[in-house]
Amino acid sequence: MSQQELRPPIGKKIKLADYDPNFHDGLDKDNTKVETVLLQKRLKQLQSMLFADKSQALLIVLQAMDAGGKDGTIKHVFTGVNPQGVRVAGFKQPSDEELAHDFLWRIHQHVPEKGYIGIFNRSHYEDVLIVRVNNLVPKAVWEKRYDHINHFEKLLVDSGTRILKFYLHIDRDEQKERFEERLQRPDKNWKFSRGDLGVRKQWDEYMKAYETAIYRCHTDDAPWHIVPANRKWYRNYVVMKTIIETLEDMNLKYPDPEPDLDKIVIDS
Amino acid sequence: MSQQELRPPIGKKIKLADYDPNFHDGLDKDNTKVETVLLQKRLKQLQSMLFADKSQALLIVLQAMDAGGKDGTIKHVFTGVNPQGVRVAGFKQPSDEELAHDFLWRIHQHVPEKGYIGIFNRSHYEDVLIVRVNNLVPKAVWEKRYDHINHFEKLLVDSGTRILKFYLHIDRDEQKERFEERLQRPDKNWKFSRGDLGVRKQWDEYMKAYETAIYRCHTDDAPWHIVPANRKWYRNYVVMKTIIETLEDMNLKYPDPEPDLDKIVIDS
Repeated sequence: MSQQELRPPIGKKIKLADYDPNFHDGLDKDNTKVETVLLQKRLKQLQSMLFADKSQALLIVLQAMDAGGKDGTIKHVFTGVNPQGVRVAGFKQPSDEELAHDFLWRIHQHVPEKGYIGIFNRSHYEDVLIVRVNNLVPKAVWEKRYDHINHFEKLLVDSGTRILKFYLHIDRDEQKERFEERLQRPDKNWKFSRGDLGVRKQWDEYMKAYETAIYRCHTDDAPWHIVPANRKWYRNYVVMKTIIETLEDMNLKYPDPEPDLDKIVIDS
Repeated sequence: MSQQELRPPIGKKIKLADYDPNFHDGLDKDNTKVETVLLQKRLKQLQSMLFADKSQALLIVLQAMDAGGKDGTIKHVFTGVNPQGVRVAGFKQPSDEELAHDFLWRIHQHVPEKGYIGIFNRSHYEDVLIVRVNNLVPKAVWEKRYDHINHFEKLLVDSGTRILKFYLHIDRDEQKERFEERLQRPDKNWKFSRGDLGVRKQWDEYMKAYETAIYRCHTDDAPWHIVPANRKWYRNYVVMKTIIETLEDMNLKYPDPEPDLDKIVIDS
């Protein structure tokens, strides 16, 4: 595939099989190295400006199959950014208290306040992914969630939050390789969980659930990006570039200083 | 002063005037540069191990006068660490809801869970600093808080959290210089607040309040460090070294893998 869009067209059904997880836009790891360092510096500057500005927030949603690279993306893209302005929230199996509320209740508590970058490692999308694949609630319930998600995300956008959603797209072969690495490397053993093998068997159902989630919840305000993620360096590069473009588009600026600063004298 | 202890003796009253904020242990910025880079790498590794291990947590408390370098310390020490494992909590003026609870209620919500480094940018110590200096509650109330703090910190320690408390020690001259920089540099104007000038006038009362807080709440389990902080590079160096020594002392290790990993075959 010579060209591949990162953002699918809005309002059209998609097939993930049409997206090549190996796509790398003719680039290679070596010739993006220098640019990656520059991008890291730029991201650090922009985050610092977002924090000073305090009028907007950025929410980044990361979704992927197991071993798809959610943790690695956070580590590689954000190590180098001042952690004071970054809040990472991971969403695992909900607690009893969380299940006793609507599915967005626990999510809402973690949306970033103005000035901050919030990163969701998994998210409210699990409620139309794992929940749908395993029939954890009736279809009549999850079917309504796409609209609820859109309304919820619109609420955040209308309150000054930009939203970027990334699906890190790997294929079954890549997942097998990564699982095998976890089995073989003692320093990665702890990341392996037998439960992940059950999820792997449901691969095709998950792809369908992702296709629907992306199609139903892909908007100009809160767009999905299908990130070719078999190559980790390309995945990181694409995610970083997309975040930087978004921050640059936010017209961040230092807040107005208090008036008459030039008249102030500090006593000894 | 040729030598200066970072940790004051336990159970003895201290005078901050005895601690030189310019102390730099005979080092200079240039000859610590290489070591600082190595320390950053080591901190990154140790944080990653803490996150994998998930049996202990680290709480770092930062206190200082305005412009003392709390934000700068976080930025310089922790930029380079994976933000997924770091939670920074800033404590400003309490809300009505927070004031309607005991003073540790809002603090308790932000203590780090196992696997995490929690950083407090200001903390429960404000309740025996600004509160005491300005008589925001009667003496009979704040006087009891030192014991409450010690009991609270012991609770955390007994639950697997290490605590490091840093007082970033600058003098009035250094604060004046830093305020003047905020007034002069357009990119720093936004950090200047007229309110800080009022606090500056209370410098001596604050020093007394810090001396009591350090003396009353300095324990083997949750020690205070008086960090010479006029020189930013030395401040960062000392804080980083102390954090690393503590993490190294925690005997972090990768958790035990699930049994019989070698018998697992991943299907194609």
